[in-house]
Amino acid sequence: MSDGAASPSSYVFEQPCPIRNVLDRIGDQWSLLVLQSLEGGTRRFNELSREIGDISKQMLSRTLKHLEQDGFIRRTVYAEVPPRVEYNLTGLGRSFLVPMRDLVTWADENHRTICAARDEYTARRAGA
Amino acid sequence: MSDGAASPSSYVFEQPCPIRNVLDRIGDQWSLLVLQSLEGGTRRFNELSREIGDISKQMLSRTLKHLEQDGFIRRTVYAEVPPRVEYNLTGLGRSFLVPMRDLVTWADENHRTICAARDEYTARRAGA
Repeated sequence: MSDGAASPSSYVFEQPCPIRNVLDRIGDQWSLLVLQSLEGGTRRFNELSREIGDISKQMLSRTLKHLEQDGFIRRTVYAEVPPRVEYNLTGLGRSFLVPMRDLVTWADENHRTICAARDEYTARRAGA
Repeated sequence: MSDGAASPSSYVFEQPCPIRNVLDRIGDQWSLLVLQSLEGGTRRFNELSREIGDISKQMLSRTLKHLEQDGFIRRTVYAEVPPRVEYNLTGLGRSFLVPMRDLVTWADENHRTICAARDEYTARRAGA
């Protein structure tokens, strides 16, 4: 490896703050929704697209690529005509769903409180 | 309600998918770090800036504003010369830290596995 551009491993292992690096990826809302869909079992691209609803094909492709790259999902291509491509959760992806589920439950339970706080903030600013 | 621009409450309450709306904000890595700092107690702007380290003043301001807006933190201004401004967690912010802590622990424990998956993915692509 040359001394020029950082190698992939120097890039990933020499991050100043590893946790940030992971949280940054986790925070992506589409990733969460894809992982939740895959919790229901193996899915093909079009099945995910239908289940998630308002995600664009391009964003779904990008999200799947990132999740595969990080080891959360497995992409399997079957040599059929036309080729069949399936997505599955890995053990890592499945283990991530444990803390994630609690977070989603929290978000679900507290959404209205957050909305009310936003309204109150706006009203306060308008009155100030 | 007029048919023109959405009012703040129609914007927040008529989202097609409320959970996404919350997760989107939660996912921001800086928010997580600010909340974690405030878990230690009341902080002033410069104290947060020092504790978090590599956050810019501009990004810290923006993050604090969003967290106040969503009701996660409280901003208190004391009429002193110069004015003293303090930040605190609210009950909502504190309750969020419960599921969040598990997620951060997970990220901490699995960071190396994710890094290894990224390296493996890169190697596979290079070899393909």
